[in-house]
Formats: sequence, structure tokens, C-alpha cells
Amino acid sequence: MSEANFDPLELRNALGTFTTGVTVITARGSHGNPVGVTANSFNSVSLDPPLVLWSLAKNSGSLPVFEEAEYFAVHILSNEQQEISNRFAGRGADKFKDLDVPNGLGNTPLLADCCARMQCKTAYRYEGGDHVIFVGEVIDLVHSDATPLAFQAGKYALASRKVDETPLLSSQNDQNSAFSEDYLGYLLWRAYFQFHTMARKQAAIAAYSDLEFLVLVTLFHSSERSGNDLSAAMSYEGSVQDTSSAIKNLITQGLVKSLGTSSKQKFSLTEEGREKTLSILAAAKSTESEFLNKLGMWESVALKNLLKQFITETDPGLPHLWENSHDTH
Amino acid sequence: MSEANFDPLELRNALGTFTTGVTVITARGSHGNPVGVTANSFNSVSLDPPLVLWSLAKNSGSLPVFEEAEYFAVHILSNEQQEISNRFAGRGADKFKDLDVPNGLGNTPLLADCCARMQCKTAYRYEGGDHVIFVGEVIDLVHSDATPLAFQAGKYALASRKVDETPLLSSQNDQNSAFSEDYLGYLLWRAYFQFHTMARKQAAIAAYSDLEFLVLVTLFHSSERSGNDLSAAMSYEGSVQDTSSAIKNLITQGLVKSLGTSSKQKFSLTEEGREKTLSILAAAKSTESEFLNKLGMWESVALKNLLKQFITETDPGLPHLWENSHDTH
Repeated sequence: MSEANFDPLELRNALGTFTTGVTVITARGSHGNPVGVTANSFNSVSLDPPLVLWSLAKNSGSLPVFEEAEYFAVHILSNEQQEISNRFAGRGADKFKDLDVPNGLGNTPLLADCCARMQCKTAYRYEGGDHVIFVGEVIDLVHSDATPLAFQAGKYALASRKVDETPLLSSQNDQNSAFSEDYLGYLLWRAYFQFHTMARKQAAIAAYSDLEFLVLVTLFHSSERSGNDLSAAMSYEGSVQDTSSAIKNLITQGLVKSLGTSSKQKFSLTEEGREKTLSILAAAKSTESEFLNKLGMWESVALKNLLKQFITETDPGLPHLWENSHDTH
Repeated sequence: MSEANFDPLELRNALGTFTTGVTVITARGSHGNPVGVTANSFNSVSLDPPLVLWSLAKNSGSLPVFEEAEYFAVHILSNEQQEISNRFAGRGADKFKDLDVPNGLGNTPLLADCCARMQCKTAYRYEGGDHVIFVGEVIDLVHSDATPLAFQAGKYALASRKVDETPLLSSQNDQNSAFSEDYLGYLLWRAYFQFHTMARKQAAIAAYSDLEFLVLVTLFHSSERSGNDLSAAMSYEGSVQDTSSAIKNLITQGLVKSLGTSSKQKFSLTEEGREKTLSILAAAKSTESEFLNKLGMWESVALKNLLKQFITETDPGLPHLWENSHDTH
């Protein structure tokens, strides 16, 4: 009988504002059967002795095994392990199918490629309403630099460290101004422009105009394309691109060749064009690596994630540059 | 005496890969003294009855109060409450100074503006090594849509939901290719271009060229500027901008006026220019709002955070557009 003045959904929503990681916790039953459950109720408790806790629903089919297991293993999942999280969150009978799970302490099945894996000896089991709280002493520990998987408001998430606001110019701008360096358009432009500026300093890229760069890379991805198709791929409302002079320059340099004539005319890379484009791609990749290293790997994953989300959710229907279907519809 | 084969720092680093939110937990002592501590050891336990837990170091000065308190309040902090987190994480004597803290159940001091606030009745206190584990029954609950503050690897963070990868074209690109729509340069350009395309569809903005737009907004932010200064603010290596014809057009339209002559010549907005620029800024802001609404508020905060971090950490020293100091050095 609860004294609460709210319903369970409201509680769930409120608790969802507390961000967590995602763990899979495994153990082995006395008959040799492995169990594993996805839990975000994990947390650290004590450093000396090293204790962690998590809780499991009393109606979980795995409860009897965890209640008698001397050991369990906590796997803090990485960004790459969403599928593992889904697999162990279900009630499937064979959660370990096709997984390579070496045995740990007490033959506990161990998962690979986590952010951290802690083998624990069960220290306490405590009453926790409709859950049992398990406290384990960490006996063995491995961890990696993999990007952690997070969970917030009922959805998988990625966390990125907060910036110190001072290096940017917000303080120099009028705080009451309608327009500042907090403006999304400025931030997107500035980030793009910084990247573009550095990429163009690479010798392999500096030799070509932006349009020549795009023609080379597009032809690299698709075996052949018509001139109209190349122009269409790079044209957006308000910025129609004529690629004909870029193509002509590239033909003169022996990087692009013409196939067929008039209305059937298509273009493709020459062998030399392919080689030069490979150098361009390597230079572009090296700029990307340099920038991502400066930002840090976890933040890089989060930034790409957010940009993809932004692009997908605000896409006004612009063509995608390296899509392979321009000629087919 | 621990059986562990690792040192405390290694454990701390491994535990840091488990992302958490940040809470402040408060109570009132029997002599009326309020206590509050920052804790990321919070988690949910049970829905029926509604139980949550957190743990407190046995050497905490606040422990005696929490051990005798019948009630405590958990505040899940928002992105805006980093200062509150820092304040309650310290050992300061007067953590509540200048805070408006109404009394809750058992006169527990309550903080405002959190993502969620749960007033709890202490249900259990459990042994947890160098910590005590507190389990409380949630009696009263409020929550908001504020962006949650997260904590990962020892730093404040923001979490943003993961995208489903399918809507983007990664599957259509050659997975082994050196270049794809996962390329940061493409993602930044695409995101910027989609924003720019939509902003330019606004009637108030469509009437002006990009350069005229920038001149108007820059003059709006600084009372007056020289032509050279305006050009310098918009020029970056490889893209020198001549603003003179943009300025001339704006003067013809009565939006910009010239002050002084020859080497001392400066420009500023006319009254009409100020009004038109206000419409431009309103249109730009409305595009931003539209995009941020599509992305969702929590993700918008995270995206801006990451773009600022990216810009700060990869800044090759380009001028900042609306910085006020161009004329002073």
C-alpha cells in the first residue's frame, strides 16, 4: 500500500531524467545454465572494499540463479553493443546463442568488447520492494577506451562532456541580443568552415577547386555519370552548379575521360584520376582524423551522431551526394 | 582486506565509463540544520512500492543527519545546475547560502528548477563497505522537461539519444570506402547547408545576399565599422571578401550610412537599416527555432555544446564575426 500521490508512469518519466549507462550482468546456475540480464540500475557503492550494486525484478526468470550464484559479472556496454543490450533485455530462452563466452570466476559467462567488465563476488542481497538489490565485491577488472552506451528517458543515448562556455564569445556578445555566437547557423557554418579551411590546406586537395573535388569524389564512388547527373547531384535550390567547366579541366589534366557521345555521354575516372582521387581521399581522411583527435573519440562519436540526427530530421529533400541512384530514376 | 588485483584508480576509471546523472540529496537534522550532498550513486530500485537508492560515504560530515532523518529529497539536476552540483559536492559549511529552499516533508529543504524532485521516506539503510546505502520510498514527485545534467569519466556531460543509422546513406555507400556520408566534412557541410537553405527561404532574408546579410548583422552588433574592418571580419585564408559592393548596395537601399571620409570612413546602420536587420534576425531566429524543435530540446543543447567544443578545440585562429574588438587592435 503506497502513500504516493503519483502514478507509475509519472515516476518512470521522472526517473528517466536520471541518465545511466547500460550493463549486462551474467552468472551461471548450479546446473551449468548461463543467465544474463540487461540492467541500468547499476551503480558504484564503495572503493574500499570495492563494491558495486544493481537490482533485479523479483519476477525475473533469472532471479533464482542470481540468488544462489557466488559470483556475477557486470559488463558496462559500449556504443557498439546496443544489439547485446537488446538481446539480454528480452526474455529469450537462448540469449547466449552464437556468443563466444569464456568462463570467469565461478564459471560466470564473460562478454567481450565492453567499456568495463567487473567480476564480482556476491557480498549482500537486500530487500528492495519489487526488486532484489545485489551488492558485489569487485574481484577482477578490465576496461577499455570504447565509447560508453548511455540511456536517458527510455532511449539509448551518447554522452559528451560539457564545454566550458568561456572560450567562446558569448560573454563578448550582447547577452540580450537576438543573434550571437550561440546561434545555430553560426555554429554550423563556423564548424564547417574551420574543417574546410584545414582540409584545403592539404596539398592533394589544394590543387583542385571545390567543384573539381566533388566531381572526382563522386566519380570515384559511382563508375560513370552523365554531366547532367553530376550537376544535379551538386545543385540545390538557390545554388545550381554547372559542372561542365570543372569536368573539362579534369579531362585536360587526364583525370577524367568521356564515354559515349551527346545525349549518351558519360564521364568516369581515368587510371590516373583514380590514383589522384585516392590521394585526395587520404588527405581528407587525415584532416578528419586530426580534428577528431582534437575533439576526442567519445565526443567525435557523439558529434557525428547528432549531426546525422539533425540532417535526417531537418532534411528538406536535398539530393545526397554519393547516393548511387541518380541515374536510375 | 581486499582480494582485488587492481588499484583504486583503475576501479574509478572503469566505473567512470558507466554514465550517470547528477543528484543533490537533502535532509534536515534534528536541530534544524539543513544538509545536502551531490551524489551520482543514485538509481531506481522498485516501482511498486516506489523505491530509489543512493549511497553516502561513511566519513561524510552529513552522515549523522541522513542516518536519523525520516525523510530526504532527491533532486535530479538539470544542465543549468552545474553550479548547484559543485556547491553541494564541496565541504563548505554554508551550502544553502542565498538559496531559496522551501520546506518539504519533515522540513526537508527543497531545491527548485530540477529535472525531477522526489521526496522520500527513508525505508532501509544498508551496509555498503565505506558507504551506507540509503533506500527511500518516493512519497512526492515533481518533474520538468529541463535538459538533464550527466556525468561520465569524471566530467559533466550531456546525453543525446542515439540515431537509428538506417535513414542515412551509410548502407548505400561502399562500406570499405575511404569516404562516405560518415565523413565529418560532409556531415558538417550538409547540416550547415540544410540550415542555410531554409533560412534563405525566409522573405526577410531572401532579399539580401549572404554578404549583405553579414554586413547588416555585424553593423547591428557594433555601432560603427570601417570598410576594411568589415572585410577583415568576413575574410579567411582562401576566401578574401570584398564588402565594398555589398556596402554600396545597402547604402543605395538606405539601410547603411557612411560616417567620416576617406581613411576615417566608417559605416553604421540607418534607422531603417536597424529595423530591417531586426526583421532579418527574427527570421533567422525563427529558422533556428524550427530546426531545434525538430531535433528536440535536449539534443539541441547537446549539439550546440558539441559544436562549440569542436570550434574551440580546432580553431585555427580565424576571426570571430561578431567580436567587438576588430577596430581596437
